[in-house]
Amino acid sequence: MAVVTKHVHLETVGNGDVINITDAVQSCLIESGLANGVVTIFSPSATSGLTTLEYESGCIKDLQRLFDEILPVDREYAHNLRWGDGNGHSHARAALLKPSLTVPFCQGEMTLGTWQSIVMVDFDNRPRQRKMVVQIIGE
Amino acid sequence: MAVVTKHVHLETVGNGDVINITDAVQSCLIESGLANGVVTIFSPSATSGLTTLEYESGCIKDLQRLFDEILPVDREYAHNLRWGDGNGHSHARAALLKPSLTVPFCQGEMTLGTWQSIVMVDFDNRPRQRKMVVQIIGE
Amino acid sequence: MAVVTKHVHLETVGNGDVINITDAVQSCLIESGLANGVVTIFSPSATSGLTTLEYESGCIKDLQRLFDEILPVDREYAHNLRWGDGNGHSHARAALLKPSLTVPFCQGEMTLGTWQSIVMVDFDNRPRQRKMVVQIIGE
Repeated sequence: MAVVTKHVHLETVGNGDVINITDAVQSCLIESGLANGVVTIFSPSATSGLTTLEYESGCIKDLQRLFDEILPVDREYAHNLRWGDGNGHSHARAALLKPSLTVPFCQGEMTLGTWQSIVMVDFDNRPRQRKMVVQIIGE
Repeated sequence: MAVVTKHVHLETVGNGDVINITDAVQSCLIESGLANGVVTIFSPSATSGLTTLEYESGCIKDLQRLFDEILPVDREYAHNLRWGDGNGHSHARAALLKPSLTVPFCQGEMTLGTWQSIVMVDFDNRPRQRKMVVQIIGE
Repeated sequence: MAVVTKHVHLETVGNGDVINITDAVQSCLIESGLANGVVTIFSPSATSGLTTLEYESGCIKDLQRLFDEILPVDREYAHNLRWGDGNGHSHARAALLKPSLTVPFCQGEMTLGTWQSIVMVDFDNRPRQRKMVVQIIGE
């Protein structure tokens, strides 16, 4: 059993940008040399989140619309009234989607479904450079 | 420390079907022979998710209504316009609920609360056969 | 590699109370003596959940408003019709937010972002005493 911690660097355009990080996470897994265990992907940020999605433009738009509807950009947020940085919606969206995702792996392969990609959603209101934590525990 | 990977097979009716998999996961844990650690349950599918719920018909209906309201079946989805398979709502719901759940266990028992069952929600628009991954890491 | 299980005791006022448990979790991590691995925080309750949030009053209010809007207190819930305990909204909110959070740690420090606190949200409709499970796996 061992713990291996890697990082994946991303450039996002913000505003609900949905980025496919499946291949980057799989590369970390290969570099770890571990065969069986769990990958924890973590976004160390208060304005982004992680989930899985079929990575095609339709699903991406539908997910973005959901967040635009339940947490619209153009309304008042208590965070904005206090801090004036205009990303109150980003914080609430990120808290709802949450920053971590755990994926088991067997014989060096993550147990993802055929249409299931690991995606990072950057809810901030501007382009950001992001560093995902990819931690692998296994044997 | 060891890693044990098991599977739980399910038949669902789709359309927001909520299935209690607590006993099946506990059986996997007993079979693993491990006493302390973490169980990761993962749904390898882009149209289903996992969470915990008090497993009674009222809570099930209330959770289903939530998804029917924020991601209704009978509206346009960009996914459906591209692919015509009519399950655009299923993809967005699954991405929101997410495919993994982690539950610690101590002395062979998961640390679930009294009213807390592990449930799989199948959002697809038709009956499906599903295979959950149950991975146990511990000692 | 070792597994260490700790608990954090909380008193909440319920009704969407958002409590910062970052320092308590970090204390558990220090007590474990482990340097690298993953912390799983789990709320053994059907009416509360865990996520991360910038812990300032604006973000807290914005997150509470989201749940008040998509799962209002003052409407009918099937759970309430069956059981009469008035916390149907609490169950659905908790199922959506989910009870677990996984955070990697490196060299004894959790990989949280600058503005990212670990929070427990108690959705129940009355004050509660809660016991969070904090499980640390690592080396």
